[in-house]
Amino acid sequence: LEPVVRRARAAAKLAILTDETNTPAAVARAFLERGFEDCSAWVFEHLGGADERRVQGRLSEIAEQRFADLNVFVLLRDSASPLGQSFGQPESAFAHRDGMITKAEVRAVSLSKLRLRRDGVLWDVGAGCGSLSVEAAGLMPEGMVYAVERSGDQVALIRRNLASHGAGPHVAVIHGEAPGAFGSLPDPDAVFVGGSGGSLEAILDAACERLAAGGRLVTNLATVEHLAAGTRWGSDRGVAIEVVQVSVSRGVGIGGLTRLAAQNPVFVVSVEKSP
Amino acid sequence: LEPVVRRARAAAKLAILTDETNTPAAVARAFLERGFEDCSAWVFEHLGGADERRVQGRLSEIAEQRFADLNVFVLLRDSASPLGQSFGQPESAFAHRDGMITKAEVRAVSLSKLRLRRDGVLWDVGAGCGSLSVEAAGLMPEGMVYAVERSGDQVALIRRNLASHGAGPHVAVIHGEAPGAFGSLPDPDAVFVGGSGGSLEAILDAACERLAAGGRLVTNLATVEHLAAGTRWGSDRGVAIEVVQVSVSRGVGIGGLTRLAAQNPVFVVSVEKSP
Amino acid sequence: LEPVVRRARAAAKLAILTDETNTPAAVARAFLERGFEDCSAWVFEHLGGADERRVQGRLSEIAEQRFADLNVFVLLRDSASPLGQSFGQPESAFAHRDGMITKAEVRAVSLSKLRLRRDGVLWDVGAGCGSLSVEAAGLMPEGMVYAVERSGDQVALIRRNLASHGAGPHVAVIHGEAPGAFGSLPDPDAVFVGGSGGSLEAILDAACERLAAGGRLVTNLATVEHLAAGTRWGSDRGVAIEVVQVSVSRGVGIGGLTRLAAQNPVFVVSVEKSP
Amino acid sequence: LEPVVRRARAAAKLAILTDETNTPAAVARAFLERGFEDCSAWVFEHLGGADERRVQGRLSEIAEQRFADLNVFVLLRDSASPLGQSFGQPESAFAHRDGMITKAEVRAVSLSKLRLRRDGVLWDVGAGCGSLSVEAAGLMPEGMVYAVERSGDQVALIRRNLASHGAGPHVAVIHGEAPGAFGSLPDPDAVFVGGSGGSLEAILDAACERLAAGGRLVTNLATVEHLAAGTRWGSDRGVAIEVVQVSVSRGVGIGGLTRLAAQNPVFVVSVEKSP
Repeated sequence: LEPVVRRARAAAKLAILTDETNTPAAVARAFLERGFEDCSAWVFEHLGGADERRVQGRLSEIAEQRFADLNVFVLLRDSASPLGQSFGQPESAFAHRDGMITKAEVRAVSLSKLRLRRDGVLWDVGAGCGSLSVEAAGLMPEGMVYAVERSGDQVALIRRNLASHGAGPHVAVIHGEAPGAFGSLPDPDAVFVGGSGGSLEAILDAACERLAAGGRLVTNLATVEHLAAGTRWGSDRGVAIEVVQVSVSRGVGIGGLTRLAAQNPVFVVSVEKSP
Repeated sequence: LEPVVRRARAAAKLAILTDETNTPAAVARAFLERGFEDCSAWVFEHLGGADERRVQGRLSEIAEQRFADLNVFVLLRDSASPLGQSFGQPESAFAHRDGMITKAEVRAVSLSKLRLRRDGVLWDVGAGCGSLSVEAAGLMPEGMVYAVERSGDQVALIRRNLASHGAGPHVAVIHGEAPGAFGSLPDPDAVFVGGSGGSLEAILDAACERLAAGGRLVTNLATVEHLAAGTRWGSDRGVAIEVVQVSVSRGVGIGGLTRLAAQNPVFVVSVEKSP
Repeated sequence: LEPVVRRARAAAKLAILTDETNTPAAVARAFLERGFEDCSAWVFEHLGGADERRVQGRLSEIAEQRFADLNVFVLLRDSASPLGQSFGQPESAFAHRDGMITKAEVRAVSLSKLRLRRDGVLWDVGAGCGSLSVEAAGLMPEGMVYAVERSGDQVALIRRNLASHGAGPHVAVIHGEAPGAFGSLPDPDAVFVGGSGGSLEAILDAACERLAAGGRLVTNLATVEHLAAGTRWGSDRGVAIEVVQVSVSRGVGIGGLTRLAAQNPVFVVSVEKSP
Repeated sequence: LEPVVRRARAAAKLAILTDETNTPAAVARAFLERGFEDCSAWVFEHLGGADERRVQGRLSEIAEQRFADLNVFVLLRDSASPLGQSFGQPESAFAHRDGMITKAEVRAVSLSKLRLRRDGVLWDVGAGCGSLSVEAAGLMPEGMVYAVERSGDQVALIRRNLASHGAGPHVAVIHGEAPGAFGSLPDPDAVFVGGSGGSLEAILDAACERLAAGGRLVTNLATVEHLAAGTRWGSDRGVAIEVVQVSVSRGVGIGGLTRLAAQNPVFVVSVEKSP
């Protein structure tokens, strides 16, 4: 059902002809598993026939029912869905733990360094609250994001943010620890490492091995030691590394004046796998 | 022919049924005027009939010929076209005069602040070499960019960059001076001011008046005086302004070491028109 | 007694011959008024004579007593005094309200821009907790600092910091509002404006008028509007202004790693009066 | 003659009683060796006697002559000498190879981190053109600076800058490579490492071993790898390190506007030896 799911993600309204294998229940389950919201649906049985019947319900209700062999299955997506362009959101657009979110400007630069393809596969490693995954999904309407995160609390936030931005069907959430969790994922053509939990080199090695030729890996580093480890990793592996330090100050209103409040600088380190 | 052009922009292959008004020549001319590359085309006359005829040529050649009333007109776009996602390009991807280009990271942040809609209308004022226009076009596949630039040299660079990135049909180039040149443009829902040539306030006023409700205007300011003028403009007009200073240093290899080379800081100032 | 006070400031031990006008009590009062700590002192009367007498006490006690016409008056300064080099102190070396102190690095740059003379006169306007006054005093061992501050709370902190750094005799504290408070001060050859309380232009005008030819005025500006006002002031008055933006990030230990924590950027604006 | 030299450095005029060992020639040679300018001098022989004689000449001339056993030897220092406060000089105040000079603001911060004592001993390692040595000398009127530099070209620039700032007697120039060149130097209570020529760890080790208890070592690092080496050195040795990144942008006039031009960021790393 994967091709159906892919095409369905971007649609506000859907009509699907079902058969004896891909029944309305099977399709509904596939959609729910792939992060679709539990939207309204209709099943039209025996259309135009004597037994014509119309069943209305949420996806989760259709998933429990049996129908005739051939049906027209109609979905009406919720208003927040499907995912539009969400590039450029402020931090306040995402549920997150205080301070535990990539700042909007650094997110923008990191996304630019990833050079995402519209139909690419991105791994978002140490996805945190999922803000980069959501924005990346908007830039990859025919692609797929895999958000790997080891913290259960953060995984819960990712799911909330995917739902509120209509990004659920575009992002698969993997609750697990990198690099072990990479095993089951399809090969990426872009990898973002937002957090490495002490395993930076191992994650870089594992991600780069799986990365498609010509693909890009980008990581955000906030400490001197990780920056050093990243550049050393590059020279040890003979990989050309691009280092960019991004420092942003934001104007804050204070009594009619605009004070510049600094955010902590972040090193955005990028690698491009030789084609 | 506007709806046809819009849909055609994103297509690698096109088949169009022509009639007595929208002849192959008329369609070809429309495509060329709207920035399509001069790609290969075929006209199939009297398909399946006794007079069936196949004519091959460049768009510019078809534009000079006459055909039967009804034809199938097929276009095969060049390899660089149509426009893919081009977000994240380095400066070297664009023809430009030395130093006269928005740096990649500042471009990324500026684009993020614009919060472009996939089907929106963007004015790129003081478009320079057109790098932001090109990347914006990639983020607005169903939208339209209007690049306003007063310098003839820069306009020539814009056209070169549009062509090399397959962005021609997505970007209309206006060789003229802002704000006067705004008159003929459709209302924008996003405006970027990359250069103001001494008319910052007039440009902000004119652009904001035309800006759609809820739309965003973003400008890059490099001097203390322009920053002051921008914030004063905001407080004079009662408009809430977001100021962000972006400072980027790039790692430069030097004898096996990575020196941080600073780029000049840029103030990215954003306004959102009240809905 | 001014010349005596000047020379006495830098001395750990002092012996002064007193006469009928400049009695031990008069000298003691002069020292206390000029910010000397209430140190131990001895008065030796009729030295070598039959009536030889030695009186020991704090300066404040000597100030209340009468002696013979000619005496040797000895002072033994406290250990923290006299003022040594204090350039390079961290913020923690000064009592201050949270966040209300010029950061050490910006203080260093500001002091450098003042190009203090060892025997110069500095006005420290909006002196805050007095950290710059203290460090400036250390760089001007034969000079004099005038710290102007309108807040009573801050004045109390200045006095505490002068005492703890042995800078009392080098810094006169003026509790008042600039520029009105300038009236009674000797002409400066250096002026630092750390805070302007909404009267930036008036303070710059008044200070520059009094500034010695070739003297320097330096101000720290944290807001976009003050920066604009400063540069406009310069161009309105035909004064060449040097603008420097200083951004500092400090390494902060976190679990064996060194995270870079940004301080807010400060604009250090300098003017040199034409000779 | 060291005590005489020390006291003489700060004096504009000097009168020295010479004896049969410390003859005018010996004193003149000592002064010249210690970096005094070749100033005017007078030798008064047999003062008040029948053989009274006055000899005038440059120091270098006196150094070649013989006099009576007891003389008054008078020196009149040149106008640029002796060294005044030179803290806060722009780069243009120092002869230097293009770009090869610590920027004024970074120099100011580095000097502040050294917390120089007025009578301290500073090693300036990789002294370059000597700008930091000169300014440090001004802050250490009773102290001594040892400038270590391996490049002959740079050593020549140091000498020129010492002479033009009257800092010669305060700074001993050692043409040699660190850490080998440290052998002959007195123990420092402050060390600045401006350049390490690939021997950063060895220099830090050697300097720290010789550093007085409570003394400070400060280094400027411009590359990611040296920053990493510095922090690793600290953690390997169990030494607490203070890291500060200093980013400065300077206003540059351009057509009546003030553009901010960024200087490359520098990491100022400091260590304080436990007392």
